[in-house]
Amino acid sequence: MAPYTAPIREMRFVLERLAGLSELAALPGYEEATPDLVEAVLEEAGKLAAEMLAPLNQSGDREGARLEGGAVRTPAGFKEAYDYYRDNGWNALPFDPAYGGQGLPWALAFAIQEMWHAANMSFGVCPLLNQSAVELLQAHGNEEQKRLYLPKMIAGEWTGTMNLTEPQAGSDLSLVRSRAEPDGDGFRLFGQKVYITYGDHDLAENIVHMVLARLPDAPAGTRGISLFAVPKFLVNPDGSLGPRNDVRCLSLEHKLGMHGSPTALMGFGEDGEGAWGTLVGEPHRGLVHMFTMMNNARLTVGLQGVALAERARQQASAYAKDRVQGKPLVPGRDEGAGGDRSVPIVRHPGIRRLLMTMRAETEAARALAYYTVSRSDVARRHPDAGERARARARVDLLTPVVKAWCTETGCSVSSLGVQVHGGMGYIEETGAAQHYRDARVTPIYEGSNEIQALDLAFRKVGRDKGEAARTLIAEMRTLDDDLAALPGDDLAAIRRRLAAGATALEQATGWMVEAANGDPLAAGGAAAPYLQLFALVTGGFLMAKAAIAAMEDLRDPAADHPFAEAKLLTARFFAENAMARADGLLIPITDGHRTVMALPEDQL
Amino acid sequence: MAPYTAPIREMRFVLERLAGLSELAALPGYEEATPDLVEAVLEEAGKLAAEMLAPLNQSGDREGARLEGGAVRTPAGFKEAYDYYRDNGWNALPFDPAYGGQGLPWALAFAIQEMWHAANMSFGVCPLLNQSAVELLQAHGNEEQKRLYLPKMIAGEWTGTMNLTEPQAGSDLSLVRSRAEPDGDGFRLFGQKVYITYGDHDLAENIVHMVLARLPDAPAGTRGISLFAVPKFLVNPDGSLGPRNDVRCLSLEHKLGMHGSPTALMGFGEDGEGAWGTLVGEPHRGLVHMFTMMNNARLTVGLQGVALAERARQQASAYAKDRVQGKPLVPGRDEGAGGDRSVPIVRHPGIRRLLMTMRAETEAARALAYYTVSRSDVARRHPDAGERARARARVDLLTPVVKAWCTETGCSVSSLGVQVHGGMGYIEETGAAQHYRDARVTPIYEGSNEIQALDLAFRKVGRDKGEAARTLIAEMRTLDDDLAALPGDDLAAIRRRLAAGATALEQATGWMVEAANGDPLAAGGAAAPYLQLFALVTGGFLMAKAAIAAMEDLRDPAADHPFAEAKLLTARFFAENAMARADGLLIPITDGHRTVMALPEDQL
Repeated sequence: MAPYTAPIREMRFVLERLAGLSELAALPGYEEATPDLVEAVLEEAGKLAAEMLAPLNQSGDREGARLEGGAVRTPAGFKEAYDYYRDNGWNALPFDPAYGGQGLPWALAFAIQEMWHAANMSFGVCPLLNQSAVELLQAHGNEEQKRLYLPKMIAGEWTGTMNLTEPQAGSDLSLVRSRAEPDGDGFRLFGQKVYITYGDHDLAENIVHMVLARLPDAPAGTRGISLFAVPKFLVNPDGSLGPRNDVRCLSLEHKLGMHGSPTALMGFGEDGEGAWGTLVGEPHRGLVHMFTMMNNARLTVGLQGVALAERARQQASAYAKDRVQGKPLVPGRDEGAGGDRSVPIVRHPGIRRLLMTMRAETEAARALAYYTVSRSDVARRHPDAGERARARARVDLLTPVVKAWCTETGCSVSSLGVQVHGGMGYIEETGAAQHYRDARVTPIYEGSNEIQALDLAFRKVGRDKGEAARTLIAEMRTLDDDLAALPGDDLAAIRRRLAAGATALEQATGWMVEAANGDPLAAGGAAAPYLQLFALVTGGFLMAKAAIAAMEDLRDPAADHPFAEAKLLTARFFAENAMARADGLLIPITDGHRTVMALPEDQL
Repeated sequence: MAPYTAPIREMRFVLERLAGLSELAALPGYEEATPDLVEAVLEEAGKLAAEMLAPLNQSGDREGARLEGGAVRTPAGFKEAYDYYRDNGWNALPFDPAYGGQGLPWALAFAIQEMWHAANMSFGVCPLLNQSAVELLQAHGNEEQKRLYLPKMIAGEWTGTMNLTEPQAGSDLSLVRSRAEPDGDGFRLFGQKVYITYGDHDLAENIVHMVLARLPDAPAGTRGISLFAVPKFLVNPDGSLGPRNDVRCLSLEHKLGMHGSPTALMGFGEDGEGAWGTLVGEPHRGLVHMFTMMNNARLTVGLQGVALAERARQQASAYAKDRVQGKPLVPGRDEGAGGDRSVPIVRHPGIRRLLMTMRAETEAARALAYYTVSRSDVARRHPDAGERARARARVDLLTPVVKAWCTETGCSVSSLGVQVHGGMGYIEETGAAQHYRDARVTPIYEGSNEIQALDLAFRKVGRDKGEAARTLIAEMRTLDDDLAALPGDDLAAIRRRLAAGATALEQATGWMVEAANGDPLAAGGAAAPYLQLFALVTGGFLMAKAAIAAMEDLRDPAADHPFAEAKLLTARFFAENAMARADGLLIPITDGHRTVMALPEDQL
């Protein structure tokens, strides 16, 4: 497997020019995010990712996590890498300073987390799940829970998990059956949970499980589910560890990818006494509390798609420059007059199209993910309530788009990475296939992409009659003037495509508002291509902004011109090859839904 | 892993209504392909596939092929299944009766082979490679080679392999270095070959390797490569087996999928004496001879894509009807007034769109594959030279489209199959992930899909100035009258989309003819989206023909109306959801190529 280099130049460009990092650093509480600190943090994280995490990615895949004697062992090297990660404070970056966090912007944390996932996603999902647990406790924990758990979890000394799904309760958590019986000032939990990422492991001395279960008096359905904090080892009032709790890993799944990451079947109360835990937040409000961390978790899974795309892109690019095969279609200066000398495959237009597609789609997905999470920073910290509300509306609108489209991009780009390698891509030693296997989970978990499409269609577009979407489209229209004011073929081409894309998105949105409010089966049947269109045009919009920023740099003698030139051309490639496909998605939305439900089930 | 049922009703529809089976049965030599025989053959093959091959697919994947003591062992059960397959004459179906073949149409053989690959592609590739070797020997072997090898290979008692690629010679076989030194009436071969499917195995008592190597006086490049037949065991003049030849499997690859199928590194002459073989065809003409079997081999790999799509589709459909999860968007009669009862996920429009996409794309890909191979039957057997030439032109035009698009479909449909299963899809026990892994090799081997796109752009469209393509487009236009003459919304919708698709294909073809003959880098950079557009519209054209046939059936009281109704609606789904995307591919062709080669390599 090829090494990984954190794309720091590109990350800084996206943070500074598209995610408004200086704007974020001006917000109350984010003052520490100075350019100097950002650069230092990115550089140090890049070293950790490249030097410690990336080399464990393939070995971790081969060895896999194992259940031995009732305890889960992570692959060789994971523990040492986690110790370093924890001891150097990397886990605390975006969390509440009151409990030891560094309180830095989520936008910066996302750039760092992209590195973890690109280097080694099987490692990266442990902090990811911990992050969700921390967010839940920060928002809904009582003072005692916060005091006992948060400092350790924020420091990464303990980790958190999300114990939501059961065999009969996946996408639909209203079917959860695990139960919690009152016992003194706590509860005893009984039940089994499936697909629990890092449900057990040897990286930390304790694990705090966030568990959905039903109280004895719980009403049926979604309004009868409560949230509990259940530690692996009970915690004494002074914070020291007490006895082992009645919760354990019963088995590990054999997965397509992510072999280094344990995915556990967890048993609560298997020993009979029940797993002791405390209620988090209000009774029966567990699912509502979960929404607290849902946006961020979904954005982070989208980010995993960006990360795997970046990793696959780097590997394919290196291979294509190295692999000599085939004569050039048009002989270059260095290939002899007859073009009879074999050349690196990067010079073949078919391969170059794959690489440009990988590059353009990765950059657009990154732009969309960082931009969206930066709006969540504004929504958290801006002193003006109107600004916060506008930013929140944007985050809400784009979260399903980031989750679904960036994870699709992770899958498609890692597939192209396999393809660039030819036969070598199908051989596991190469490593390209691992990215393809690892990526495939991301469209499934944290709300399947089909659920994201419904979320966009009904909650984010239908409910407000398209207002948030139209506000975004209006911004796209505004960019038309900026594009028109600058010279050159590239911006002119981008401008044409953005205008067409915005028109298509506007038409589709008008259709969707009607359908979501009058014909739910039509809206549901059209939701997937609508999300795809939404993503292509919004990605193209942000790449158009990137092109304008690149054009500014090209006029600035002090700027990095080769980078800016490449960004400009990549933005044009995206406009003419990805955003342009929006034209072909209108009919699948407005007409294609008619046959979605038409066949009788016995003919399917 | 879910069971497999051969889709015989669908196969017969495609063979009879789109591939012209009765027309084929009227050709000299194909008279035995009567409807009764076709039905009996399909039924019996379906039983073998479902009852013997499919149950070995997952166990073969888990166990894998192994190299033990210098010999390759296939997974448990493969030998018994192969014995049955061979003893019942399945291998001989399409081959020359002069050597024991049954001489049945390739169109029928394709339907049968689809079953083998759908049931167990790791098994199916052994006959597939044998088929290529048989075709080479039928066309270029001398009488002695044919007498010694063909009856055994056609019967399946021995198998054949293709030993083409070397580490430095993959897509570009001009770089082959293996050498052949004259020795009496034969040659001694030295060299190593990589990625040799079933290069060694325990299914048959002998293996005949077709090997590319250079004679001592060979000129450099493609015109210096010769083809040799090298048996694993030398064959005595009476056909009995002699001593072991100096060719052996050095190692097996660890692949992403196809674990049951051995992919060997083969060593020729490792013991020093050289592997004894005989020249097939003329010296230095090995690559030219290879073209004999190339079309059929590429069509068969396309067929593997259809097969895996079908298998994944069946598995996803069964799961979606069984898995109960989530409330309906719109309550049906049986879900209670409030819609508060959970339903099978097949009732959710998001899932149903996935299933309909899987169904429509599988059917369109099958239609394209069977139709194209049926034209090869006409090209072989039609008494009229003009008809043969027209059929040959159609096969040549569509072969890269079948290979590339049907394999892409195998990958995308098996990915949707994983998605339908949700979290279960990521667990290997389910089996959905295996189809996804197995499918991924098909866009790579037998000429990567990038090479197919160049073949279409330059050789099949550029060289004849678009004549073959325009002939096809003219047939699409002719169908417009047929569609207009029949009633109903469905055909009207299909007609609109086919008209738009044909126009887009015509525009793109005009552009491509210019580019291929004047601006090869532009043509090469646009070749991939051009092939995609070509496939969507040609697939849509054949599905439109299927819709017309379905409409005829709906007016025939004796016909299978539920099947016809489902076919009609599926054709409309394809038109409005797949063919409609052709509109979005024009800009990527005519404009998108401009930035394909624009970035300096150090910025990639």
